[in-house]
Amino acid sequence: MDVRAAVAVQAGKPLEVMTVQLEGPRAGEVLIEVKATGICHTDDFTLSGADPEGLFPAILGHEGAGVVVDVGPGVTSVKKGDHVIPLYTPECRSCPSCLSRKTNLCTAIRATQGQGLMPDGTSRFSIGKDKIHHYMGCSTFANYTVLPEIAVAKVNPDAPFDKICYIGCGVTTGIGAVINTAKVEIGATAIVFGLGGIGLNVIQGLRLAGADMIIGVDLNNDKKAWGERFGMTHFVNPKEVGDDIVAYLVNMTKRGADQIGGADYTFDCTGNTKVMRQALEASHRGWGKSVVIGVAGAGQEIATRPFQLVTGRSWMGTAFGGARGRTDVPKIVDWYLEGKIEIDPMITHTMALEDINTGFELMHSGESIRSVVIY
Amino acid sequence: MDVRAAVAVQAGKPLEVMTVQLEGPRAGEVLIEVKATGICHTDDFTLSGADPEGLFPAILGHEGAGVVVDVGPGVTSVKKGDHVIPLYTPECRSCPSCLSRKTNLCTAIRATQGQGLMPDGTSRFSIGKDKIHHYMGCSTFANYTVLPEIAVAKVNPDAPFDKICYIGCGVTTGIGAVINTAKVEIGATAIVFGLGGIGLNVIQGLRLAGADMIIGVDLNNDKKAWGERFGMTHFVNPKEVGDDIVAYLVNMTKRGADQIGGADYTFDCTGNTKVMRQALEASHRGWGKSVVIGVAGAGQEIATRPFQLVTGRSWMGTAFGGARGRTDVPKIVDWYLEGKIEIDPMITHTMALEDINTGFELMHSGESIRSVVIY
Repeated sequence: MDVRAAVAVQAGKPLEVMTVQLEGPRAGEVLIEVKATGICHTDDFTLSGADPEGLFPAILGHEGAGVVVDVGPGVTSVKKGDHVIPLYTPECRSCPSCLSRKTNLCTAIRATQGQGLMPDGTSRFSIGKDKIHHYMGCSTFANYTVLPEIAVAKVNPDAPFDKICYIGCGVTTGIGAVINTAKVEIGATAIVFGLGGIGLNVIQGLRLAGADMIIGVDLNNDKKAWGERFGMTHFVNPKEVGDDIVAYLVNMTKRGADQIGGADYTFDCTGNTKVMRQALEASHRGWGKSVVIGVAGAGQEIATRPFQLVTGRSWMGTAFGGARGRTDVPKIVDWYLEGKIEIDPMITHTMALEDINTGFELMHSGESIRSVVIY
Repeated sequence: MDVRAAVAVQAGKPLEVMTVQLEGPRAGEVLIEVKATGICHTDDFTLSGADPEGLFPAILGHEGAGVVVDVGPGVTSVKKGDHVIPLYTPECRSCPSCLSRKTNLCTAIRATQGQGLMPDGTSRFSIGKDKIHHYMGCSTFANYTVLPEIAVAKVNPDAPFDKICYIGCGVTTGIGAVINTAKVEIGATAIVFGLGGIGLNVIQGLRLAGADMIIGVDLNNDKKAWGERFGMTHFVNPKEVGDDIVAYLVNMTKRGADQIGGADYTFDCTGNTKVMRQALEASHRGWGKSVVIGVAGAGQEIATRPFQLVTGRSWMGTAFGGARGRTDVPKIVDWYLEGKIEIDPMITHTMALEDINTGFELMHSGESIRSVVIY
């Protein structure tokens, strides 16, 4: 079938909106009509050419929501008409990782997904005789896409596509980092570095988890109001507090009879490896957990003195917020419908597919929290 | 009173055995007759001058066992005649750290201990008019020493001093890293880097925890027999397996349908920051925990790509094996008496205080696992 797609033809070039061909679903696969898709930094990272594993041409996009319009042989968990969110981290429920109960990083289709292909090693997208790569197993920058059954989460059909698409990446990553990875408890103190589309969701995750002190750190003072809207209790602009942001934050979080500072939990949402170090070192001696969420540039490294670990800090990371997509994403959609979390104010811009490059420009200029393409 | 002590007069010089003066215990303090003390790498690190926080002159030694011979006013938890192990990590049970239930790093006397002083800010040791510093709150390189009540663990009097002194540091650090910090479960796979006095105790901790595959890594092939004696199942000499020890270990630990390698738990017992990185990267995608135990040289840093964390590995550390001294050390002494753990074969050399420098030489030459001074 002919579908409309924004194609990443070449690294560093704008997307080109065109008609491409999509094959129907094979065994274990589903055809989705994509109704809305967010534009995420990861799409931009790959499009820019900075992603060493980026493949071209490809149909990017991994933060979508839509409706099942056809299923291949053997598909049992979803049917035509179901509302679904595509999952770049699938959940097969039978690989060693899914069965480990210790990670959400399902390995069932890891190899082919990394090659921009469906699990059978082929692509469903083409233009004329030329194949186009899938991206992160989703390719939501097309109005129709094909996914493996294990990579779609069936969600409440009452939820609006143009909001819950954000649960396909940013919302779940931020909230999940708090709940699944850090396992923040009521009364905790926390610091969030970087108040973009992920950081704000970490903040509302911390509010949901009952954290007492939620400090947001950003170079842009406009983010203060944004953070406060989602539960931030204190704002720090590193440019305004002198040379040693770590000492400043440690001092700010001093409490208890021994007056040792540092937050119980810290989160890096910047992708900057220097900030990742600050986040670790601003966590509390003895039990501080620091979670890396941001994606660093190729080849960049994090560093610290091992003393930071030996005195009780843990350095960890999260992908898709530690969420098991088919199990946890439907719950987060329900939380949105119940008003436990907010999404609407974060979606600052919407546009048609034809204007998708505007969404990338708004991201670069820092004007948007999230842009969403509505088909 | 006059006591015999091996004094660290100056960085980089051998210890000098001499008679020094020791004041009796003040309020909340106890006087201990030290019966035996191990010689640990940390003593050597400080004596060498590499420890930026080292103070001189000082009476080193932190791995001892002895008998309470006097108590100061207000002491209630131990009495004359009790057998005790001095604790360089005290357990006051009332500071925010003790009450957090999240760390063993009691902060009650941290500041003064770091200054080589008793909690009231003075030293009990002197020679003539000159004060001598305490060390790690213990100073077991003297036949009598004074400690705060919160820094002694009362243990079973049936246990031999010349063996259980090792529980004052090495045994507890190694076993505790497995049990308290990593929380290794039955059937796990693990890699231990460095098979010295700590590494062998990590190995027997892994055996105690029921690990299936216990890989020991050391540059010295003589350590193979040592590791096997305490439960190691596989030995790897990095010099014999090519350039990429991480890839070798990941391959060695491949298992399950998806054939992803890497150990569930890895432990650095070398203090080498390059090895610390290898340990992290040889842990399993999705859930690998890597524990830093070794003490690195001043100013040295660990580094890795943040991708290692984002894909589910955690980097952590341990001090005194995460053990709460007064609570956990007596249990470990009982485990020794019950035969659950071994200590005797690790104590390869014993000597009188006068020959203590020989103990350091045996450590440098790699001949000893542990040397113990018997008073």
